[in-house]
Amino acid sequence: MSSTTGQVIRCRAAVAWEAGKPLVIEKVEVAPPKAMEVRLKILFTSLCHTDLYFWEAKGQTPMFPRILGHEAGGIVESVGEGVTDLKPGDHVLPVFTGECKECAHCKSEESNMCDLLRINTDRGVMIGDGQSRFSINGKPIYHFVGTSTFSEYTVCHVGSVAKINPLAPLDKVCILSCGITTGLGAALNVAQPKKGSTVAIFGLGAVGLGAAEGARIAGASRIIGIDMNPKRFIEAKKFGITEFVNPKDHDKPVQEVLAEMTGGGVDRSIECTGNVNAMISAFECVHDGWGVAVLVGVPNKDDVFKTHPMNLLNERTLKGTFFGNYKPKSDLPSVVEMYMNKEIELEKFITHEVPLSEINKAFDYMLGGDGLRCIIRMDT
Amino acid sequence: MSSTTGQVIRCRAAVAWEAGKPLVIEKVEVAPPKAMEVRLKILFTSLCHTDLYFWEAKGQTPMFPRILGHEAGGIVESVGEGVTDLKPGDHVLPVFTGECKECAHCKSEESNMCDLLRINTDRGVMIGDGQSRFSINGKPIYHFVGTSTFSEYTVCHVGSVAKINPLAPLDKVCILSCGITTGLGAALNVAQPKKGSTVAIFGLGAVGLGAAEGARIAGASRIIGIDMNPKRFIEAKKFGITEFVNPKDHDKPVQEVLAEMTGGGVDRSIECTGNVNAMISAFECVHDGWGVAVLVGVPNKDDVFKTHPMNLLNERTLKGTFFGNYKPKSDLPSVVEMYMNKEIELEKFITHEVPLSEINKAFDYMLGGDGLRCIIRMDT
Ligand SMILES: NC(=O)c1ccc[n+]([C@@H]2O[C@H](COP(=O)([O-])OP(=O)(O)OC[C@H]3O[C@@H](n4cnc5c(N)ncnc54)[C@H](O)[C@@H]3O)[C@@H](O)[C@H]2O)c1
Ligand SMILES: NC(=O)c1ccc[n+]([C@@H]2O[C@H](COP(=O)([O-])OP(=O)(O)OC[C@H]3O[C@@H](n4cnc5c(N)ncnc54)[C@H](O)[C@@H]3O)[C@@H](O)[C@H]2O)c1
Ligand SMILES: [Zn+2]
Ligand SMILES: [Zn+2]
Ligand SMILES: [Zn+2]
Ligand SMILES: [Zn+2]
Repeated sequence: MSSTTGQVIRCRAAVAWEAGKPLVIEKVEVAPPKAMEVRLKILFTSLCHTDLYFWEAKGQTPMFPRILGHEAGGIVESVGEGVTDLKPGDHVLPVFTGECKECAHCKSEESNMCDLLRINTDRGVMIGDGQSRFSINGKPIYHFVGTSTFSEYTVCHVGSVAKINPLAPLDKVCILSCGITTGLGAALNVAQPKKGSTVAIFGLGAVGLGAAEGARIAGASRIIGIDMNPKRFIEAKKFGITEFVNPKDHDKPVQEVLAEMTGGGVDRSIECTGNVNAMISAFECVHDGWGVAVLVGVPNKDDVFKTHPMNLLNERTLKGTFFGNYKPKSDLPSVVEMYMNKEIELEKFITHEVPLSEINKAFDYMLGGDGLRCIIRMDT
Repeated sequence: MSSTTGQVIRCRAAVAWEAGKPLVIEKVEVAPPKAMEVRLKILFTSLCHTDLYFWEAKGQTPMFPRILGHEAGGIVESVGEGVTDLKPGDHVLPVFTGECKECAHCKSEESNMCDLLRINTDRGVMIGDGQSRFSINGKPIYHFVGTSTFSEYTVCHVGSVAKINPLAPLDKVCILSCGITTGLGAALNVAQPKKGSTVAIFGLGAVGLGAAEGARIAGASRIIGIDMNPKRFIEAKKFGITEFVNPKDHDKPVQEVLAEMTGGGVDRSIECTGNVNAMISAFECVHDGWGVAVLVGVPNKDDVFKTHPMNLLNERTLKGTFFGNYKPKSDLPSVVEMYMNKEIELEKFITHEVPLSEINKAFDYMLGGDGLRCIIRMDT
């Protein structure tokens, strides 16, 4: 038992006070975990588009002040009442979606959309008592997707924390707690390309490149990367992508370009853009008879997916996935093992590193479309 | 070798001379089969909506005079050059879609959409030489979907003819060559409901009730039938459907009614209406996390399938099927065996029977929404 157990911890956190304004490093108070909660010491975190999106708060009800952050690795500091599967010292990845192990989804082999701990971006408090564990001078600071990892210490529901191999380097595997695992799972668990098949990947950010890793591992022989931003093709070359298509280079719809390149369509496509037109193209570019399209990108509120139903009748399949269909507690440890066994390489996703004190640089890199993942070191 | 081999056969056929006008029983000449073709003696045929649709010719380029008909059972009379897998005397079902066994689709385990012999409603001639085998006084009569079974003799491509168990009664199994097999396969091959699951079926015509048979065989414990026409619920009671919903009885969208009835959505849904709104409801009524919706109905030309992409992201799957994903030559014989083994019952689909001379009555029954299938006996 550490000396801080049961005590309020004062530590540094990057607080978002206002939409779109630089984060401020503050001293925050982090209350001890209550029933079914754990308090984590975060060692490394990284910035994902979802953080940026809720920081900009253009499409949603703003909720400030808030501690963002959800891709991270850390160590359990203390556990609340009723927690039996985690103990102080365990190495863990917090996840934006959880696994209660008791609802219909958790009991289903097919779903990872836990009824209790499914992502809820509108909730800024703990699920147990509706309160925040963060405060500054007694004034509460909102949580974010149950993780709030831009803080040296954070409190999570036990169902949102995956215990991993303690030998895994947290400065690398921290990036497995969101986008890269999502892309990887979209390929390995959902699209499931056969050996020798052709896979199209729309959007070559971290999620799309995670999907490319999955397609490569599954044995796809052609992996076609599609992006509107040609800068993306540079990093993407390291990811086994065999051909690149920029829709802007063509007069006809990109689904027609792909059909011509592949004699009728690709075997699998994975959409990782969040753009509804890319979703439609990703569906319509798969081969009739057997093609499967998987949607990963998060659409805007008013987007409508439209297609002629004949495209479905001709034996195409359309699916969506959430966190790559991985169950966060049950499956994420095995994804970490894939890294330990050198089946996946994470180093090539990490293009920048900054100390917590310079976290706003990570936002600048992302806003500039520069690189893939920026690791934020919490100890400096 | 029969005495008619290599000869033109003169026989009776029901000819559609004009859109929407009663068929006329005529003496037609049926030329011998050319390379890769077989000539069949049709014993029983039945009327399907697709015949009616092309007879009414409201949505397509009219093609008349034409011999319609595609659900049938018969016996091979003679075979053309190069035909090795069928011989005179074989009992067969002609099918509106074929299997060349050589194209990418035929070689794929997943597809039945043969590149060569896929349904083509605009073709009124043989695929080999672009000519018709039917004529009256030297004037050609068009074929229909490669089958034209409203004739005592017809000529088909060998790839569109399935050889079946000679002990199977052709007056029953003839109805397996289109809609019922389509519905059955949509359930057994595509939706694949698990034992104990809940299945919604939109549209309770022969196709929907074929799907209900499939859901029952797969072990579904709740089968919910949805139709706008309450008359349909009467026949449907014989098909293991446990609950009925008429969308007209409710103020809210039927997908919401179904979600309430099932605690969040059905496990599988199968759309057998051809109505695009039913397609959308069938998709949106499946449970998030694991629900699968299968589209079977043939849409109108300008229909658009629309949904919010979030419905997909929440781990729903949308698929379409053509002939229930059965490969016509390879798989249809085993569907006939299901009948022989009493796994499926066909008698309850057959609500009327008429001789060829009264074939127009079959059209009247269908236009009046009366019954399911009308068998047309060719020998009377
Ligand atoms: N389903 C999930 O569980 C889950 C989890 C994490 C992220 N996501 C979503 O995945 C998506 C991708 O995330 P990311 O971090 O890789 O984002 P990113 O912004 O780094 O990458 C997206 C890429 O898509 C490209 N793009 C945009 N519109 C395009 C179009 N019409 N055609 C082709 N390319 C286009 C952009 O140029 C960009 O390179 C986002 O929508 C994110 O919200 C989903
Ligand atoms: N995909 C294939 O391979 C294939 C093969 C054969 C038939 N089909 C198609 O399957 C469909 C059904 O064929 P069928 O012979 O059973 O037709 P049918 O007309 O006998 O049955 C359709 C039923 O759907 C009902 N319906 C119509 N709109 C509805 C709505 N919005 N909500 C609920 N119910 C609605 C009708 O009242 C009717 O009872 C047709 O579109 C047909 O073209 C497809
Ligand atoms: Zn749960
Ligand atoms: Zn993320
Ligand atoms: Zn073929
Ligand atoms: Zn039919």
